[in-house]
Amino acid sequence: MSPRFDLSLYLVTDPDMTAQRGVVETVAAAVAGGVTIVQLRDKTGSARALAAAGRALLAQLRPLGIPLLVNDRIDVAHAIGADGVHVGQEDLSPAAARAILGPRAIIGLSITSRADLPTLDATVDYVGLGPLFPTGTKADAAPALGETEFAALRRRILVPVVAIGGITVANTARTITAGADGIAVVSAICAAEDPRAAAATLRAAVAAARRRV
Amino acid sequence: MSPRFDLSLYLVTDPDMTAQRGVVETVAAAVAGGVTIVQLRDKTGSARALAAAGRALLAQLRPLGIPLLVNDRIDVAHAIGADGVHVGQEDLSPAAARAILGPRAIIGLSITSRADLPTLDATVDYVGLGPLFPTGTKADAAPALGETEFAALRRRILVPVVAIGGITVANTARTITAGADGIAVVSAICAAEDPRAAAATLRAAVAAARRRV
Repeated sequence: MSPRFDLSLYLVTDPDMTAQRGVVETVAAAVAGGVTIVQLRDKTGSARALAAAGRALLAQLRPLGIPLLVNDRIDVAHAIGADGVHVGQEDLSPAAARAILGPRAIIGLSITSRADLPTLDATVDYVGLGPLFPTGTKADAAPALGETEFAALRRRILVPVVAIGGITVANTARTITAGADGIAVVSAICAAEDPRAAAATLRAAVAAARRRV
Repeated sequence: MSPRFDLSLYLVTDPDMTAQRGVVETVAAAVAGGVTIVQLRDKTGSARALAAAGRALLAQLRPLGIPLLVNDRIDVAHAIGADGVHVGQEDLSPAAARAILGPRAIIGLSITSRADLPTLDATVDYVGLGPLFPTGTKADAAPALGETEFAALRRRILVPVVAIGGITVANTARTITAGADGIAVVSAICAAEDPRAAAATLRAAVAAARRRV
């Protein structure tokens, strides 16, 4: 069994967007605004630098009960005692992550299209489904699913689903209506002038949307 | 205890240099020529691609009893059942590798200068010491140690040492004289027109140098 986690407002960090403010400061503000789970993503830095950033985030997040997941690097997640990992289709498999991190780790998997569904197995605790809308954050992102395909795929996934890709306060309601258990954002918080306010607005939009579903 | 390994001729793969011939084909030729241990290094590709290359190499090397180590990615080494990992100063620590891979894994550590010596602990099975000579392979390589400093550092290291950085058949004898247990090469084999012949010549040079030491 995995520890409980709340996908309502899922923050994915970006090294460039947080460079000026600092990743720890950005996450601190985002969490104060209502982020419920954090994924540390940095595809460019060294493992040692990623581990250092992860340790700094854990010191901040663990007292608040907010899980920290590491993108891709299962070994870094193990080394720093993170709550889990998030793996994409180009990363190692969820089963490989489970074998290293053990039964209590939170393991998330990216699903970008119908073709990815066979990679979803019993070791996966939640799915990051998207891109739902067009996004400029990931240069190599798959085509946007759109709400109809998102909703169809979501119904075929038995674990909680967090939507990702182009999500803003303006389309959060449609995202929840399409079946998402929460929203994952990068630029909507990391690139915001006031990450705390951005997070608070997004969290409120999720709550409002849920009341309408 | 680690399984026994032979550092005499240590091949580090390079994705660009092996792109045309293929990494598996390059390693096959190199092993036929006398390579005794292989490190799979690719800092640019995905974990999944690295794992696929590693599995293909293992299928080839394991029947020959030649160990395969994975550079940096401890999680990939675990996932494919590699013989061990090689970590640099910007990677996770040897202890982090040992915690994931267990007591039988071969764990190597790069030492580039006197300042790195404190990172050498009891979990390390061998050291990659260098760059000994100037090298063009790694754009971010540390300054070359030269033979005097190499020999001084080597005497302070209690585990086997493989020399790396700018090693060719022309300076192999000096490298062994400076205290190396073996030579690690990238371009001298990966970029050779005939990797098998290059490996055979280097292996013979190591053997000849040992007879003179």
